[in-house]
Amino acid sequence: MHDIIAIITDFGNRDHYNGVIKGVILGINPNAKIVDLASDVDSFSINDAAFILYASAAYFPRGTVFLVVVDPGVGTNRNAVAVECSDHFFVGPDNGVLYPAASREGIIRAVKLEASRGTFDGRDVFAPAAAKISLQGSIEGIGESYNLTEKFELGEASVDNNFINARIIHVDKFGDAVTNIRKESLTKINKIKYEGMIIKRASSFSDCSNICFIEGSSGFIEIVANKSRASDKLGLYAGKNLRLELYE
Amino acid sequence: MHDIIAIITDFGNRDHYNGVIKGVILGINPNAKIVDLASDVDSFSINDAAFILYASAAYFPRGTVFLVVVDPGVGTNRNAVAVECSDHFFVGPDNGVLYPAASREGIIRAVKLEASRGTFDGRDVFAPAAAKISLQGSIEGIGESYNLTEKFELGEASVDNNFINARIIHVDKFGDAVTNIRKESLTKINKIKYEGMIIKRASSFSDCSNICFIEGSSGFIEIVANKSRASDKLGLYAGKNLRLELYE
Amino acid sequence: MHDIIAIITDFGNRDHYNGVIKGVILGINPNAKIVDLASDVDSFSINDAAFILYASAAYFPRGTVFLVVVDPGVGTNRNAVAVECSDHFFVGPDNGVLYPAASREGIIRAVKLEASRGTFDGRDVFAPAAAKISLQGSIEGIGESYNLTEKFELGEASVDNNFINARIIHVDKFGDAVTNIRKESLTKINKIKYEGMIIKRASSFSDCSNICFIEGSSGFIEIVANKSRASDKLGLYAGKNLRLELYE
Repeated sequence: MHDIIAIITDFGNRDHYNGVIKGVILGINPNAKIVDLASDVDSFSINDAAFILYASAAYFPRGTVFLVVVDPGVGTNRNAVAVECSDHFFVGPDNGVLYPAASREGIIRAVKLEASRGTFDGRDVFAPAAAKISLQGSIEGIGESYNLTEKFELGEASVDNNFINARIIHVDKFGDAVTNIRKESLTKINKIKYEGMIIKRASSFSDCSNICFIEGSSGFIEIVANKSRASDKLGLYAGKNLRLELYE
Repeated sequence: MHDIIAIITDFGNRDHYNGVIKGVILGINPNAKIVDLASDVDSFSINDAAFILYASAAYFPRGTVFLVVVDPGVGTNRNAVAVECSDHFFVGPDNGVLYPAASREGIIRAVKLEASRGTFDGRDVFAPAAAKISLQGSIEGIGESYNLTEKFELGEASVDNNFINARIIHVDKFGDAVTNIRKESLTKINKIKYEGMIIKRASSFSDCSNICFIEGSSGFIEIVANKSRASDKLGLYAGKNLRLELYE
Repeated sequence: MHDIIAIITDFGNRDHYNGVIKGVILGINPNAKIVDLASDVDSFSINDAAFILYASAAYFPRGTVFLVVVDPGVGTNRNAVAVECSDHFFVGPDNGVLYPAASREGIIRAVKLEASRGTFDGRDVFAPAAAKISLQGSIEGIGESYNLTEKFELGEASVDNNFINARIIHVDKFGDAVTNIRKESLTKINKIKYEGMIIKRASSFSDCSNICFIEGSSGFIEIVANKSRASDKLGLYAGKNLRLELYE
């Protein structure tokens, strides 16, 4: 049950980087069940990788090892880490990608992996660590004790009288823009206003004419359109701050 | 032998959607052998997904469960279904994506899956159903009996004197345009004419100068070019109707 | 241990081609562990596929079967081959894609696969051969003895007084341009000059302002930028020849 390794990277599928990571894993744990979780995250986007991991982890079996290689600081003195949480293990750079998922789940302990100073820690540091953890079912002996330093937060939208100060935390392939507004916090609202535009609640994509908001599948309010890209229409992108008026 | 689950979606690889589906499957059937069949179908293209499934199913082992999530109507009252055919199982929305492959193979019975009314039935409805079917090797107990309603057809080109009325059913990555003309129906023809242009038969891509037609690998006539995009040159796209003159 | 099949193709993930190959493999060897090594190589790029295989093979377990389908000459009289090397097996067209990896490792013997004359040898010729090899752990009985004819070389940069005549052998997703200069041959150089521009050595991407060269993860010097595309800035692409001045 500890043999699943789920991989998130920004390497894409036209190079060998993702493949080589899988080769290294299978060399160490021939029984590893490797899952390509998201192989083509936007280049260098710690924000996107952190969101993807956060939105995915709870749906994987207990003991799954998540290997995240979105690592613009590879080769610098940022640390490489492995984290044991109550249900899963997380391996990757200490640049914030692991933090939202790990902290929500509850960090039991973290260790620092030995540095390589090369330019491909996915292959040389993270894959071997993930494979070893999947073999033994623990982070025992993987590195010395460590505390995560990059406490990147997806954040939580704040209410200010009749306004919500929110942030876009991900824009998906379809142009749906995920906000950091928990769906529970907007249950009584059916219309919001953004830069003069009324955005109505919809219960499904098909139910939406023009631009709407829905309770998204990851637990957050999403701004969407029906078969077109809300993000393009409104100029939304991951990291953008929004001030939304609660309208009705 | 019932543990293969082959997945077709339009989710792409920069989001978590495909990955989460795989996590859910492995939580239910730890022995599932998950195959990414086509992870980046054109967004919302029921046509493309139906073609891909049709062109693939016969090449997978008996008992394979195909999970198709190209589902523009998610959250509406379209039904979610599982279909048992003579060789394979098909799980997905009843929007036409399953129909061409299932009907060709022979539908033994279909069942309706319990609805979710959420926006991610791939995760919440289809993945659990596919995983259960792969575990038990049947659709027993998965849902109540049902008949598919969306009988989407790839269609078959019709001959009208010296003309063929055809349709493009898929354009692939290389710009090769797959028609719905069965290759058997054109064996004696070496030239066709389309909008004033003569298109010659070629036996391979390399054999083709400019634009040609070939007997494609899926059993249909394809309009192709040699290392360039026939679809762009002729303005072809999935769903386009063509009137072709049989020329020689 | 002979059950890993790692696949490199230019088919991408919006069509069924990669998926069908995997279905055929599982029909022959139900225990095959299929690894998507690189599923979206640039269309028809023998250069890229050869580099990817070369940069990957050593990181996979002994006995891995590599299946490479980047095959612009499919359907012509180019031959389909399987190659046994000291550590791995390689299956694909005899068009150069296998040669750099196989020749470096040491070719023990090669065989010619039976031709199909269709347009999808990945499905009809290469996948069955790879599956059989993975089942039996040898190329025994797969075809008649053969010598590779297309001896495509990544090449090795040559020094000419104070200049290096080099070639770009790959440009990756991030726009990093891999040269054919072995990193060992440039250890004492900290600046090179290309078309009037000074390019400084960097030890990591973050360490680089503007354009730099680094010792890349595949053993070659790479021309890179920090979070931007060196290839675009300098007009570099796979196959381009460069004359670089050793400057300091």
